Amino acid sequence: MITVLRLGHRAGRDPRISTHCALVARAFGAGAMLYSGEHDSGLEKSVVNISENWGGPFEIKYEPKWKGVIKRFDGKKVHLTIYGIPVQKKIAEIRHFKNLLVIIGGQKVQAEVYHLADYNISVTGQPHSEVAALALFLHELQRGKELNKKFKNARIRVVPRKCGKKTVKRD
Amino acid sequence: MITVLRLGHRAGRDPRISTHCALVARAFGAGAMLYSGEHDSGLEKSVVNISENWGGPFEIKYEPKWKGVIKRFDGKKVHLTIYGIPVQKKIAEIRHFKNLLVIIGGQKVQAEVYHLADYNISVTGQPHSEVAALALFLHELQRGKELNKKFKNARIRVVPRKCGKKTVKRD
Repeated sequence: MITVLRLGHRAGRDPRISTHCALVARAFGAGAMLYSGEHDSGLEKSVVNISENWGGPFEIKYEPKWKGVIKRFDGKKVHLTIYGIPVQKKIAEIRHFKNLLVIIGGQKVQAEVYHLADYNISVTGQPHSEVAALALFLHELQRGKELNKKFKNARIRVVPRKCGKKTVKRD
Repeated sequence: MITVLRLGHRAGRDPRISTHCALVARAFGAGAMLYSGEHDSGLEKSVVNISENWGGPFEIKYEPKWKGVIKRFDGKKVHLTIYGIPVQKKIAEIRHFKNLLVIIGGQKVQAEVYHLADYNISVTGQPHSEVAALALFLHELQRGKELNKKFKNARIRVVPRKCGKKTVKRD
């Protein structure tokens, strides 16, 4: 089971970035995204809406006390940060663990996060995006198997096409 | 050479998402990002600022006439879309081409894009993020070699650490 923890969400400034993080978590095989910072029912609604239509299971939950979440987590904690050890050097080791908490920060990550994490891992060592870092990490973790993941109770499903759009819907 | 074309940027609504797209393009080995939609000097400034500090080469350029950009492009055109053929089925074929235009859409992509593209490619077939789709595609295209890419004339460089932050700066 993979759980994502998104730190420091700001409802006014980050709604789309945090939504992208949650949808990437779901699409790339995580079972839940917890988030701290500001509570945002709009964020939660749009993610629940996607899960109801496109299948699950996937949960999103507000957790204001992120420190407790990390401390209590029963498994390994991986913090994605530009300052960490390159993902390609550590991913084989991290694959051994069954329960993972993948922590992604916002603009300002408190120093304590680095110490609470079992691994501080970078994806490229260049400034880019927590959305991309999360996707890459989950992809490497699962060796690309997540690309074929099937979702349960989906009402909508894409039928892949060379050109154009096709979906199948059921009520 | 890989060029990214971001369609339909909206300065008011998408500034951070488009910035993430550009930074992912740069960090994952593209040489430039062109964007259509609304002109946004703030977006351009923040991307140029990152390239000046973290190294290049990388260019960002506004191209209001996206159709002409796609038609004139001398190389293969890959449109990333949830409706396309799964990336894992086509990436080996696409790796043969040297010049690639990777097209990523905003909310509404015109039907013509599907027809102008040589490939319509999906990353998971689930709704998530153009930022993540771009990162995953560039990663698979380059078989992960982009993770070790060195940038020229960088003023700032991260020194990877197990815990904490370390950068080296030069003037």
